[in-house]
Amino acid sequence: MKINKKDLILASASPRRKELLNRLSLDFKVHPSNINEDQYTADYPVDLVKLLAAEKAKDVGSSYNNAIIIAADTIVVYKGQVLGKPENERAAFKMLVNLSGAEHYVYTGIAFNIIENKTPVLISDIDCSTVKMRDYDDDEIYEYLNTGEYKDKAGSYAIQGYGSLLVKEIRGSYYTIMGLPVHKLADILPEYNIKLYNKI
Amino acid sequence: MKINKKDLILASASPRRKELLNRLSLDFKVHPSNINEDQYTADYPVDLVKLLAAEKAKDVGSSYNNAIIIAADTIVVYKGQVLGKPENERAAFKMLVNLSGAEHYVYTGIAFNIIENKTPVLISDIDCSTVKMRDYDDDEIYEYLNTGEYKDKAGSYAIQGYGSLLVKEIRGSYYTIMGLPVHKLADILPEYNIKLYNKI
Repeated sequence: MKINKKDLILASASPRRKELLNRLSLDFKVHPSNINEDQYTADYPVDLVKLLAAEKAKDVGSSYNNAIIIAADTIVVYKGQVLGKPENERAAFKMLVNLSGAEHYVYTGIAFNIIENKTPVLISDIDCSTVKMRDYDDDEIYEYLNTGEYKDKAGSYAIQGYGSLLVKEIRGSYYTIMGLPVHKLADILPEYNIKLYNKI
Repeated sequence: MKINKKDLILASASPRRKELLNRLSLDFKVHPSNINEDQYTADYPVDLVKLLAAEKAKDVGSSYNNAIIIAADTIVVYKGQVLGKPENERAAFKMLVNLSGAEHYVYTGIAFNIIENKTPVLISDIDCSTVKMRDYDDDEIYEYLNTGEYKDKAGSYAIQGYGSLLVKEIRGSYYTIMGLPVHKLADILPEYNIKLYNKI
């Protein structure tokens, strides 16, 4: 069932997610969520990103009567441990040493909150990608850290930047690793009358 | 063995390859090769992209006394058939119909021609990625074709653009699909004194 076109809202402050929607020439507004992420827990990381994406979409949705909210949450998991954003260069170094020559996982939860006349419908999903790193050495890590790119990045690297040099191969969606599985937009948004392929 | 720093030359007219080197803040010049690709043959597509990348690197290298030439060649293979750039919208439609819901391969050959005092050393390699497409329908293909993005793209899509919506997952390097396996730069260029991680 097609419904009327709604405002599209990105419930995220991430410049990467904003860039990805911009690349698709989508007309959207940015409205980050204010939830306190620390109050949520789940038995498994995969459940936590799905929950956090959903809670962000619900939180931002409460400000709108008619809108489609897109929210996402991304974590990096290595040997069962969640790698967050590094506190400092030393923490980033440690993470990148561990990841060298090894495989890790990137989970991104994505949630759509479709609100019509104040009535929300929530759709949430999860996408996982595997990342295999090159067998880089400590000197290369120091060079990478010097670029400053590691800051504010879960896992201490950015696959779309200099971090592209550290990554040997992936399995899954590249965009999930960047923080937004865009192919999920193609599964959902057209149902709600959001046109995806806007002429260049 | 480290040798003196040389000019870096991209032997390709591809705007995607140029963009990838720019993202890495590399200092390089663009000097496309003029070889006639049709004169080369190989038993397998994988051998052909390696050969073509090498021939391009040799061709452009003949103009320099001291330089590092980077050349590449990319093909899309579906069910053993090479999918080239589409001749027109109709040909693009046919390709995208075939690829829907299916897997195909992207091979990129990459060659480095390292020239010191007119003496060339050639290093060539190949990288392969598998691409699994979403199960998109004909209407979605028409919408995609309307963006015009398919033109001049092997396989009739661009993974870095609207084509990101058509791709479900990949195995291998995203940058190989874009046309340049950047992680191979990290294996080769530092040996020749090209600094890769230049501060943002």
